[in-house]
Amino acid sequence: MQLCSQWLQDRGISIVTTREPGGTQLGLRLRSLLLENSKNQAITATTELLLYAADRSQHVEQELLPNLKSGKIILCDRYIDSTIAYQGYGRNLDMNLIDQLNSIATLGLKSDLTLWLDLDVELGMARKRKSGEIADRIEQEKIEFHRRVQKGYKELQHTFPERIIQIEANLNKEEVQKHIQQILTSKLQEWEIISC
Amino acid sequence: MQLCSQWLQDRGISIVTTREPGGTQLGLRLRSLLLENSKNQAITATTELLLYAADRSQHVEQELLPNLKSGKIILCDRYIDSTIAYQGYGRNLDMNLIDQLNSIATLGLKSDLTLWLDLDVELGMARKRKSGEIADRIEQEKIEFHRRVQKGYKELQHTFPERIIQIEANLNKEEVQKHIQQILTSKLQEWEIISC
Repeated sequence: MQLCSQWLQDRGISIVTTREPGGTQLGLRLRSLLLENSKNQAITATTELLLYAADRSQHVEQELLPNLKSGKIILCDRYIDSTIAYQGYGRNLDMNLIDQLNSIATLGLKSDLTLWLDLDVELGMARKRKSGEIADRIEQEKIEFHRRVQKGYKELQHTFPERIIQIEANLNKEEVQKHIQQILTSKLQEWEIISC
Repeated sequence: MQLCSQWLQDRGISIVTTREPGGTQLGLRLRSLLLENSKNQAITATTELLLYAADRSQHVEQELLPNLKSGKIILCDRYIDSTIAYQGYGRNLDMNLIDQLNSIATLGLKSDLTLWLDLDVELGMARKRKSGEIADRIEQEKIEFHRRVQKGYKELQHTFPERIIQIEANLNKEEVQKHIQQILTSKLQEWEIISC
């Protein structure tokens, strides 16, 4: 995100970086509820889905739509594909239910481009451990959960090959970033935001 | 609630008292988000609805269904009728959307009896002021909002006259409680929980 953001700004492109959950003041509090590790705090799968939808609804109305209206390009860390992958494939929740809630929360707003940073589940976990950060409630799920999530993204990418681009994230940061910049260059030309 | 609860327990009936929002540990945190008066914290109408649904979903799965399974009678302060009245009539949100979310959150669980304590909006506000408690985010809404909510309950009562009983709450506490006890006696006999 940081590298992308800097790269775009260096090209004179006006961007906003944000994330879900937690892209609004209310969302930050929902993010704590959703990701903290408190063991005495149970969250059912449906409640989890509804909380992500609440965060998204606030984010779309308060941040995304106003920024798009003023001509900004938005870089958002996670959006509806993550809900399909995590709550749909990961938690095995009904896909119609997820579609219903995504559509309520987004008011129909879709992303133009989704960069899926795909890496081996074990490598992802090893990187997290190495970072010294404590794994959050979702990251602490079993490896089978994370494999289902990965499968979810893979199937989404196959369904929407134009919009969702798979980025080989097992590579090092420089190589990953180089690939992303190639994709962005091509898309920005296609959208006539930069010239060829 | 307290008087009802005591009256039922005095008759040897095993009950659980609870409320929405805030009937679970997670729900208590959602209750703070929903009801506190912080002026710098915007909540859109759709987000509000989704947060009530998240609270309800957790409450139904974690508290209501397990207690019903173990044979308890549940006294719950607010349930789906309040969402129809406040978010539907009060906030003017789409009724299909509310029905969708109520059905997702409740897994189909309905109340057997709803006691609607109906009082003049002005009197309700005066009682609140007199109590010395600070009005919460919803209570602080304009009088027109509260009138729409009251209209909502009224129409619900007309649609479900068997399930929803209007209680004249302009009267004093003793008279209100007497009316409630009459209703409960009749219902408990009908359900064969107490004998005639």
